[in-house]
Amino acid sequence: MPSYSVAELYYPDEPTEPKISTSSYPGPKAKQELEKLSNVFDTRAAYLLADYYKSRGNYIVDQDGNVLLDVYAQISSIALGYNNPEILKVAKSDAMSVALANRPALACFPSNDYGQLLEDGLLKAAPQGQDKIWTALSGSDANETAFKACFMYQAAKKRNGRSFSTEELESVMDNQLPGTSEMVICSFEKGFHGRLFGSLSTTRSKPIHKLDIPAFNWPKAPFPDLKYPLEENKEANKAEESSCIEKFSQIVQEWQGKIAAVIIEPIQSEGGDNHASSDFFQKLREITIENGILMIVDEVQTGVGATGKMWAHEHWNLSNPPDLVTFSKKFQAAGFYYHDPKLQPDQPFRQFNTWCGDPSKALIAKVIYEEIVKHDLVTRTAEVGNYLFNRLEKLFEGKNYIQNLRGKGQGTYIAFDFGTSSERDSFLSRLRCNGANVAGCGDSAVRLRPSLTFEEKHADVLVSIFDKTLRQLYG
Amino acid sequence: MPSYSVAELYYPDEPTEPKISTSSYPGPKAKQELEKLSNVFDTRAAYLLADYYKSRGNYIVDQDGNVLLDVYAQISSIALGYNNPEILKVAKSDAMSVALANRPALACFPSNDYGQLLEDGLLKAAPQGQDKIWTALSGSDANETAFKACFMYQAAKKRNGRSFSTEELESVMDNQLPGTSEMVICSFEKGFHGRLFGSLSTTRSKPIHKLDIPAFNWPKAPFPDLKYPLEENKEANKAEESSCIEKFSQIVQEWQGKIAAVIIEPIQSEGGDNHASSDFFQKLREITIENGILMIVDEVQTGVGATGKMWAHEHWNLSNPPDLVTFSKKFQAAGFYYHDPKLQPDQPFRQFNTWCGDPSKALIAKVIYEEIVKHDLVTRTAEVGNYLFNRLEKLFEGKNYIQNLRGKGQGTYIAFDFGTSSERDSFLSRLRCNGANVAGCGDSAVRLRPSLTFEEKHADVLVSIFDKTLRQLYG
Repeated sequence: MPSYSVAELYYPDEPTEPKISTSSYPGPKAKQELEKLSNVFDTRAAYLLADYYKSRGNYIVDQDGNVLLDVYAQISSIALGYNNPEILKVAKSDAMSVALANRPALACFPSNDYGQLLEDGLLKAAPQGQDKIWTALSGSDANETAFKACFMYQAAKKRNGRSFSTEELESVMDNQLPGTSEMVICSFEKGFHGRLFGSLSTTRSKPIHKLDIPAFNWPKAPFPDLKYPLEENKEANKAEESSCIEKFSQIVQEWQGKIAAVIIEPIQSEGGDNHASSDFFQKLREITIENGILMIVDEVQTGVGATGKMWAHEHWNLSNPPDLVTFSKKFQAAGFYYHDPKLQPDQPFRQFNTWCGDPSKALIAKVIYEEIVKHDLVTRTAEVGNYLFNRLEKLFEGKNYIQNLRGKGQGTYIAFDFGTSSERDSFLSRLRCNGANVAGCGDSAVRLRPSLTFEEKHADVLVSIFDKTLRQLYG
Repeated sequence: MPSYSVAELYYPDEPTEPKISTSSYPGPKAKQELEKLSNVFDTRAAYLLADYYKSRGNYIVDQDGNVLLDVYAQISSIALGYNNPEILKVAKSDAMSVALANRPALACFPSNDYGQLLEDGLLKAAPQGQDKIWTALSGSDANETAFKACFMYQAAKKRNGRSFSTEELESVMDNQLPGTSEMVICSFEKGFHGRLFGSLSTTRSKPIHKLDIPAFNWPKAPFPDLKYPLEENKEANKAEESSCIEKFSQIVQEWQGKIAAVIIEPIQSEGGDNHASSDFFQKLREITIENGILMIVDEVQTGVGATGKMWAHEHWNLSNPPDLVTFSKKFQAAGFYYHDPKLQPDQPFRQFNTWCGDPSKALIAKVIYEEIVKHDLVTRTAEVGNYLFNRLEKLFEGKNYIQNLRGKGQGTYIAFDFGTSSERDSFLSRLRCNGANVAGCGDSAVRLRPSLTFEEKHADVLVSIFDKTLRQLYG
C-alpha cells in the first residue's frame, strides 16, 4: 500500500469538499440546457449536466458550478477519477491520434502494434488462468460475443469433427433448427448482463429493463438471498445457498444438456448488490464442469479493482478458473478473457465484427492497469473500503431504517438497503442537494461505486454528508 | 465540385503508386507477427498487418513496408483516408482529451457540450426528414437499439395509454408473454444488419455468419435479384421487383399485425452489393405505412457519402421519410436518426446503456461532416464514381468471366461478379500481390469501398492494377 495520497499526487487541485450553490438540484442552468438537449436526445434519465473540463479526481462539477463528490463514477466506469493526468497524457499521444484517425477493422487489418498493446495492457491484467482475449466495445457486446463463443464451442463438440450438413446450411438462413441452436444460456435471478437482445434475455434485474422486447426462452436459476449481518446468519445463509445450488442442479437436469453456459456476476450489481459466498461459487463451478457447461463470469461492473481484488472472482479461490471472464466499464475497453483455444471458433469470420475492439480504448486500458500496479491501487481500495465500511457501520448503528450493510472485505463495493424504494430515492436526491452523487440499485439499495482514487478523506466527506442527510430526513 | 485535389491538399506525401517489395503476400515480417498475435487473439481473418503510422490517404502501408492502394478502407469505415490531418487535429484537441479521460454514462450524466456537439455534427448531417438521434457504439448496436425503439413504440400503441399489467410485469422476468413480445422484425434475403443476437436474427447474408447461434423466428422477404446491364433488362427487372413487392405484401398479411418494423439496406452490401430501384423502395414504404409497420433504413455501410448522396436512401425521393435511419462505420460514431417523438419510449431507462454513444467518436463525426461539406466530397465522389464506372465498363468489355458491373450513378459504390467464388478469391489475392487492397461480398462479387478522398488518379491506378491482374489470371 502506498504511503502517499494518490489522489493528491494526481490531483493537486482536487476540491476538498463539495459545494452546492443552487437552491434546487439540478440548478437553473443545467435544467435549461437539459431542456434544450431533450429536443434531440432523450435526457429523462439525466441526474446532472456535467462540466467535464472542470471535474477533478473524485469530484464532478456541473453546469451551474456545483461541485459533487462522485461515488457513482459514470456507473462504475471511471477507474482513476476525472481528468486523470496519465490518461490525459496518453490521450495527447501520437499513438492515440493514430488509433483514432485510423480505426482498424481489427480482425482483418490489425495494426502491427496491437499484439504488443494487448500483451502490455489488457492481457497483463488478465485474471488468473486466462491467457487469451477477444475484444469488443461494451459490456453487452462483451457478453454477447462470449455467448456466441460458447454456442459455437458446444456445437463443435456435438458435431465432433463432421462438417456442416446441407440441412444446417439451409435451415439457418430461415433462423430454424438444425442450423440455428436450441441451446441456452442460464442466468440468475436479479442478474444483469446488458440490454441487447441476447444479453437482455439473460438480464433479470427489473421489468422496466425488459418489457416489450422479444426474449429467448432461456432459464434462470435462483441467486442466494443472504441475511445480514453475515456473522449472525451463518446457518440460514448456508441453507439458502444449498437450496439455490440444489435448484440449479435441478435446472441443469431439466434442460438435458441444452445449457451451453451459465453467466453470473460475482456481486449482482444492477440487481441490488447481492452477494454469495465463495463456497456457493465453488459448488456452482463444480456442477458446470461435471455437466460440460461453460462458466462465464461477468466482471463488467465488479472487475478492475474495486472489490479489493483485480477481479472479484479471485476472492473465490476456484480450483478451475472460469471458462470466460467478461469485462468493460472501468477498463473503457471491453471483451472477454479465456484460456481454452476451442473457444476460438473452428473457422474464421464466425466470431467477427467490423470493429472487434478499439485500439484507442486498449491504449487507455493499458495506462489504467499500469497506474493500478504502480500505486498498488487494488490493495489501497481494499484498505479504504475497510475504513469506509467501519465508519458506515458506526453511523448506521441504531438506525433501523437502514438495513443489510454489505460488502465487508470487498473493497469499496459497499451497499445497504432502505425499507422502500421511495425512501431510498429520497435519500439519493437529498444527497445530491448535499453534494454527493450516489446511486441506487435493485429495489431499495444504495450502492457505492467510487473510483480507485477514493481515499479515507473522501470517505470522511461521504460519511459526513450521509450523516447530515439522514438527520434531515429522519431527524 | 472542388477544382482542386482534396487528396493532395490533405496528403502532400501520399504515395503515387503501390509498392510491393515482398515476394509473397503477406510478407515475412507480417506473417511472423501475425503468428505471434494468434497466440492471444484470433488472426485467421487477417489479410494484412498494417502500419497505421505510415499509411497515408488512400494508401495503406504494412509491416513489411509494402504500400497498397486501399479500396476497402477498413470495411468501408475510413471516411477521409488514413491519417487525415483534420482528424489528427481533433484527436490532439483538449475536447478529445477530456472526452477520452471522462467518458460519460451519457443518458445519466451528459456533458454540457454534448447537445451542441450533436447539433453541429451528427444532427447537421441527418437525412432529410430526421431531427432526433439516439447514439450507440457500432452498427449492430445501432440496429438493435433501433429494434428496441420499434418494439416499444408498437407495444405502447397497442397498450393505448394503459399501464403495465401485473401479468406483464411478472411474465417478462421469465422471458414469457405477455411481458415480452411476440412481435418481429422483417428483414430481406441476403441482408446484413450485424452479428449480435437481435441483429443476427435479421442478417441473411451467409450461413457462416449465423450457424449454431440461437435466432428469433422472424420472417424474411425476398429482395430483388436484378439483371445487368439495367438498360437491357428493364422489363425483367420490373417484373422481379413487382414479384418481390407482392411477396412482401403476402408476408405482411400472414404475420397479422405482428411485424413491428422492416429493416432494409439501400444497397445490400455484405450480401453481394444487391441493388433495387427507387420504385421498389417507394412501394415498400407505402406498404409499411398502410400497415402501421415502421421502416428502418440501415445506412451503416451505405451512409456518409460514398453513393453520391450523403445517405443512399436520398436517391429514392420518398414522400414519407423512413421512421429510423441507422448509421455507423464512416462516421465512427453510431446510432439512429428518427423524427417521431413516440420512438422515444414512454419512460426513461427503457432505452438505456451505460455508454449510449461516445463523445470522442461524436467529435470525429463532426469533423468528418465538416470536411465533407467544406470540400463538397459527396458531389466529388459521385463524379469520381462515374469516371471509375466508365473506365471499368471499358476494361471489362468482352471479358465474359466478369459480369453484372453495377453501381452506375451510385458514386464509388461499384461492384461486379466473377463466375465463382474461387475465381473471385483468386482475383482478390492476386490484387493484393499487385498492390491493391480490395474485398469481396456475397458469393462471387467484388465490391469497391474507397474513402471519400479517392480521386480520378487513384481510379487510374486501380484500373491499371485490375488490368494487370486480369491478364495474369486470364491471359
